[in-house]
Parts: sequence; C-alpha cells; structure tokens
Amino acid sequence: MLNENAFKIVEKMISSSEKLGIIYKKDEANIIDAGIKAEGSLEAGRLLAEICMGGLGSVEISLKDYSGILLPEVVVSTDKPALATLASQKAGWNLKAGNFFSLGSGPARALARKPKWLYDRLDYMESYYRAVIVLETSQYPPREIVRLIAESCSVTPENLYIIVAKTSSIAGTVQISARVVETALYKLDHMGVDTRKIKFAIGRAPVAAVVSSEGEMMGITNDMIIYGGEVFLASEVDFDINEVPSSASPSFGKPFADIFREADYDFYKINPAIFAPARVAVNFLSSKKLETAGEVALNLIRKSLKVGK
Amino acid sequence: MLNENAFKIVEKMISSSEKLGIIYKKDEANIIDAGIKAEGSLEAGRLLAEICMGGLGSVEISLKDYSGILLPEVVVSTDKPALATLASQKAGWNLKAGNFFSLGSGPARALARKPKWLYDRLDYMESYYRAVIVLETSQYPPREIVRLIAESCSVTPENLYIIVAKTSSIAGTVQISARVVETALYKLDHMGVDTRKIKFAIGRAPVAAVVSSEGEMMGITNDMIIYGGEVFLASEVDFDINEVPSSASPSFGKPFADIFREADYDFYKINPAIFAPARVAVNFLSSKKLETAGEVALNLIRKSLKVGK
Amino acid sequence: MLNENAFKIVEKMISSSEKLGIIYKKDEANIIDAGIKAEGSLEAGRLLAEICMGGLGSVEISLKDYSGILLPEVVVSTDKPALATLASQKAGWNLKAGNFFSLGSGPARALARKPKWLYDRLDYMESYYRAVIVLETSQYPPREIVRLIAESCSVTPENLYIIVAKTSSIAGTVQISARVVETALYKLDHMGVDTRKIKFAIGRAPVAAVVSSEGEMMGITNDMIIYGGEVFLASEVDFDINEVPSSASPSFGKPFADIFREADYDFYKINPAIFAPARVAVNFLSSKKLETAGEVALNLIRKSLKVGK
Repeated sequence: MLNENAFKIVEKMISSSEKLGIIYKKDEANIIDAGIKAEGSLEAGRLLAEICMGGLGSVEISLKDYSGILLPEVVVSTDKPALATLASQKAGWNLKAGNFFSLGSGPARALARKPKWLYDRLDYMESYYRAVIVLETSQYPPREIVRLIAESCSVTPENLYIIVAKTSSIAGTVQISARVVETALYKLDHMGVDTRKIKFAIGRAPVAAVVSSEGEMMGITNDMIIYGGEVFLASEVDFDINEVPSSASPSFGKPFADIFREADYDFYKINPAIFAPARVAVNFLSSKKLETAGEVALNLIRKSLKVGK
Repeated sequence: MLNENAFKIVEKMISSSEKLGIIYKKDEANIIDAGIKAEGSLEAGRLLAEICMGGLGSVEISLKDYSGILLPEVVVSTDKPALATLASQKAGWNLKAGNFFSLGSGPARALARKPKWLYDRLDYMESYYRAVIVLETSQYPPREIVRLIAESCSVTPENLYIIVAKTSSIAGTVQISARVVETALYKLDHMGVDTRKIKFAIGRAPVAAVVSSEGEMMGITNDMIIYGGEVFLASEVDFDINEVPSSASPSFGKPFADIFREADYDFYKINPAIFAPARVAVNFLSSKKLETAGEVALNLIRKSLKVGK
Repeated sequence: MLNENAFKIVEKMISSSEKLGIIYKKDEANIIDAGIKAEGSLEAGRLLAEICMGGLGSVEISLKDYSGILLPEVVVSTDKPALATLASQKAGWNLKAGNFFSLGSGPARALARKPKWLYDRLDYMESYYRAVIVLETSQYPPREIVRLIAESCSVTPENLYIIVAKTSSIAGTVQISARVVETALYKLDHMGVDTRKIKFAIGRAPVAAVVSSEGEMMGITNDMIIYGGEVFLASEVDFDINEVPSSASPSFGKPFADIFREADYDFYKINPAIFAPARVAVNFLSSKKLETAGEVALNLIRKSLKVGK
C-alpha cells in the first residue's frame, strides 16, 4: 500500500518535472533529482514529503509569523501515524558503499523491512513490484547502492524509484520539517508505547531558511522541529506526556549543531530524547483527557537561523 | 444538486474505506459507518462535513494554538451559505422509532423538505433519484427508519446513503465543529433575515478533544462553536450584527452542558440565541460597512475541555 | 505554457458556472463575467487569481484575525515567481478604446509581449493558439478591444477568453489581494534585480471588505497589500532588502486613496516605491542569510476599512 500510494505521487512529479524544477533520469533505476543538480521547488518538497509518508499523510505549506520571523510553515496531517511515519517516513535504512553514505527513508523500507524489528513490532508487511525510496544526499547513489536497494526490496532496478535531494535544497528543507509528526511517533516508540494506538496526528513546523553550508544545514533543519515543532495526537493508550517533547532531553536548549559536536559527530552518542517536537498535545481517548507538554523556543529558532534581535 | 454533489463525495469515501477507517455496508440501504463501530479518521470527518453541506462548502483541517491549548481547527468556506447550511447541513429532521432517536442532517432533507416551511422560505426544491443523509447517532438506524427516510425522499432504499458517526468519534467531533457557519445562518434566519442574501461565508472553530463520555460530548462539541467559533459573512441586506453572536444570549458564559441541564434536557426550553458562533464579522455589501460583534471566550473552551490553568 | 495552464482553469470555471456564480457568454470571443453582472464568489476569485498567474501559482483562502479585525486572507505561493507574476499576473497592458479603459493582466500579455521590454528582460517567449486575459473593469469590453487583443496575441477571437470582474466584486477583491507577491517582484524588477533569480515566493494579504463605491475600492484594495501584505522570498542574488517593502516609499503611512488624490489621479506621478508588500523576508541563498524588512500597519488597514477603534 505504501509503495503503491507513493508511486502515484512519483508519477505526478515526473509528469510535471519542468514546473517542479526536478530532473528525471532513467538509468538502471529511476532517479528523480529534487535538489542536487536540480533546483527543485516548494511543491517538489511538499510532494517529496507526501511520498516519504507513503501517501498516508497530507502536507501543506503556508506562511507564518514566528514572533518576528516570517517563515514558510509545513502542516502535516495523517490518520495512520505509525504506518505513515515509522513504517515509511523514518530515515531508518543505512546505505553505505565506498565513500557514499545516506539514510534511506520512504516506503521502500517496508519492502526491505529496514529495520526488521520495527516491522515486526508494527506487525506490518508489504510486497509490491515497485519500490520508492528517498535519499537525503548531495550525491547520486552509485550503482552498487541502487542494486542493493532493488535486491533488498525484491524489485527489479527498473521498478525502483529513488528520489534525491540535499539537506540545503528547497525541497530538502521542506521534507525535513515535514518530519515533525515522525519525531513524536519515534519518541513514543522509544518510550515503549504501542504506536498503532495513535489514531491521528497533526503537526506543524517552520521550514528552515538556508543560512549555512550543506554540512551545517543538518543541525539547523533539525532545530526547526526540536524548537519550533508542534504536534497534536489522539491516542488510545495512556503515557506520560512530559516525556514526549524535546524539553525532556538534558540537551534541550542548545542548537542541534552544538549537541552533535559535543557528541563527537556520532549520532549514537546523542541522547535520543532530543529528537522530538518542541510541544505536544495529546487527547487520551480512553482516559478522556487533553494534556499539553513542552513549549516552542523561538529564541533558539532565531539563533539557529542567525536572525539578530 | 445537493444530493448529487454529496453523492460524489460519498462514492469517494466508499472507495477509500480502509484508508479512511470507515465501514461500508450494503443492506437494504447503504450504510457508511464513519464512527460507531468504525474508528473513522480526521479525513472521514472532513468529507462527512462536506457531504453535510451538499458539496457546496469546503472544509479544511489545520492546527491552531488557542492561547495555550493546541487543537485541530476546521476552516469552513461556502459561496452558497443558505443552501449549504440551512437547506442541507442543519440537523433539521427528527427521526424517531422505538428507542432510536436521531437528528438527520444533509441533503436528503431537501428531498423530503424537512422542515417544509424552510424550503418554502428558501424557495428551494430538489429532486434526485439518490438521497444522502447524515445521522449523529451511536446506533445503526433500524429498518423502520431506513424505510421512512427512503419514502420521504421518494427514493428506493438501495439509492439511499446513510452516513453515521457518534458525537464522540473523531469524524463526529470534526463534522460538528464544521457547523460553525451553519449556526450563524441559523441565527440570521431566526432573526428574520433573508439568508439567500448572504453571499459567502468563512468560519473556523476548534475541534473538540474527547474528554467525556458520549452523552456529555454533545455539550462540549457545541461549546467549540459557541465559545470558539468565528464567522465572516458578506451580506446584501442589513441587520443588527449584535444580535448574531452567542453572547446575545442570556445563557452566554456557561458550558452548554449546564445550559442543557438547566433546561431539564429539553432542547425546546433553551433560549435559541445561544446557538451561534462566538464572534461574527459582516461586510454589509449594500450599506458598505464592515462590522464585528462578539468575542471568542477561550476560558470557556478551556473549562469545557477540562484543561487546567 | 502560461496560456495553456490558465486555459485549463478557465475550462473548469466555465463548467461550474452556476456554482461559481459566474456568467459565460460566447460572442465573437468568450467572456467570463466573474463580477460585473455576475455575483461571482470567493472561489471564482481564487480561480481568477490562479488564472492571472498562468497556473504557476496556488492561491488559498482562509480566515484571519488582524488584531481585532476578522477578514478573509489569501495565501499565494509560487515556484516560478517571475513568470507567474511579472510575465503574467501584472496589469501591464493598457487597453483603451472610446470611453472604455482597462488594464489587462494574465497570460495573454505574454503572447502580445506587453510590454516588450519586460519579456525581453525575462528572456521569455510563448506562442499558443488560445489566449487568456483578465480585465479589472465594470464594463464588458467593446468589440474594438476584443479584436485588438486577439490580433495582438495572434489568436482568432473564438480562441480568446476574457475574464472580467469589477474592483468591488467579491472575485475582484480576492484577485487583487492575491497580487501581494507580484508587488514584491515588481519592486525588485524596479530595483534592477534579476527576478529570474527569485526561486520561490509565498505571500499573504487580507481581502478587502466592500466599504466604498467602485471608484474608491481601488485605493482600499491596494491598501490591503501595501499595509497588510507579507511576502517570503528565496533569492539567489543579493539586494538591499530595506528598499523592498512599501515603507521604503515617502508616501508610506497614507491610505492609497489619499496618495492617488495628491498625485492628481495620475498613476505616473505616484512614487512607485509604494507598490509593495508591507513586510518582506528574504532568504539569500548565495550569501546564506535570512533578513526581514518592513512592518504590517494594521492601523492603516483599520482606517482604510473604516473600522472604528
């Protein structure tokens, strides 16, 4: 279902390549460049984000004043939060070959079951003859990686669709902010909550402006969610809402770039509690309560985007 | 027109049953369960609301901060306010058989002319071989009711589409908040204004979180409109705008549940002036003025949703 | 591309004439009346605005509180700002015959190259057998004008689509506010910036309420952008952002009607710096900075719409 839904959006992208500023290239597999050599666009980023969610979420872009900073905003909504985010959108597939490295996200993961424990836990299985994967990278994937993905998904390379965009591209900044709901689900999964009991989710986050080089944009795009993201969830199970927002992490309050540096640029040394929206509201459907936790930290958005007082 | 438009949305719902979390059942008539045994979804609620308006209104869901409370918000827009709301969306048809009771809303009312005086007043008549009705109920309608609706609409039962959802379901809370424009038109009609002179309307209201049992959710969902709803109208006739918002009612300031209890749970004893949005802005097109009346009462939204200070 | 895209929206409008409140009339050419004899609608205005942008922009309507004034708001987004606005939406074609005068906007301008220097500068050329033009006028265009447009666009009159709406019509107020991004691009072009380097733009502006006669609505609708408009741009070239917003004009602070009167009702005597959004944010992609300039002036929106304190 995820790959089939996503493929419909991929087809739409390909047929509007020029308007979207993307480059479609059919080699061994299908490459859709939405932000490496291609300029991309907001709309390409929006569609890319919906592809990441396997067509089970909607992403809209608007304009919002963040107390003095005017920025594009993404609003993400899904009625299948665990499938759309954990089973699809999450960057859960490490792809490495020679000096190429990228984290793969999107529905292809469900075919390759990357990681297997997660699909077992979600009790979700999918098979389809086409695979759609999204790579946040500044290089096109080498043949070795293309073949590895196709094999792991049990599809032929001509039925593999790889969408690529770098972090600092327009489409890249949009698709990263659109991960705001994903981070809430990730945190809940980490807390041991059965995420299949989350009935719907709506989130929003500012879209990062490009204010640094490619390498540094990773920290800035993450800050948009950690310090600017807000998510509303409806849950059939109870949990301690105070553990959910990024403020539950001891690292809260520092730009993500600093947190990453202090962890010697090793993701696994970062306290994972930081990967979460700044603010969360939950409607507990069984215990019939509405609770809120966390706060948006606009001073950190401001600092991250290098906007003076 | 209303039933034909609505049927197109119904068809779309049926063909996406799984994604929308709804159950489609073809018995004597067609039952679309969007929130009784079915879990439903935000998107099912959104489509249900558009069905209620006979396809003459658009409903969008976003996320909004109500001074400290983060809630989903519906934005409702229509260029045919009287037809979309009074002739269709209004819950104007009392359906009773044995211990089953429900208020019917949606385009089928226009076929059955329920109530007749309203369709006469609006000078609106419709005939169509399919009927679409929406019932806010926690029970499937008995055969007796199904037949009564079909007969009153002059359609065969197999051409009758009944969409059901309970008040406390996800789709239910959405479709009720989406009645924010309807309550403004209802009030104007009650004031004797020719509602066909309202040229367009846009409204918004918070969507209630489920914080009580089914029985009590009726009051809470109403509070979202009465204390949180805002409507902008363009009118070709003048009227006293101060009579429009809910604050024109002496009952203003109490949760609807209390108002209902004080009326001995008898709708007809409630001062009808309370059924209105909290705040209204009107562009009087003939006298060329822009006026505003009423105020959103977030303290009452907070109280209704049991959110602590 | 612009005319072909726009024509698809025109077709959609014609096929929904009744719902949109428009009148379609096929004489020598095709006239779509969205707000002269026709009542029009918000949705007609929204589509009209997308037609003006040659199908290269999206326009959404919502409801917003402008510190005490509740108004419809348009949000305009485009990934091809120079083409969508300068090459299409801009009212850049003076059409005059007898006592008929109107400024033509929309994609037909690209066929007739009005004005030629602009299309040369944008290095843009288009030929298509259909032409789509939008006229802000309270009279249907005379035969002489229809023929002039067709000839200048090298199309036959039966392939010419003229959409008309007066300033004070519902569709008119919407399509004017939807020019908020256009005014930013106009200003940049005036400053000598290569507008093809603007990668995307999102803007928003309040939609004017009708509070004056047709003649005076021109000033009021302009005020919505000049004092209420906000635009976010991503630019590959640097420029001085402080020159962009309307506050860069010495006329800033007066209702546009006063500015126009003081210029003896001669557009060419007005300091053109006033035609700009109130507030602008720019992400300079090359120098990697986010800057903001200008401020929304709600007191002037209030004054313009004659809303008391």
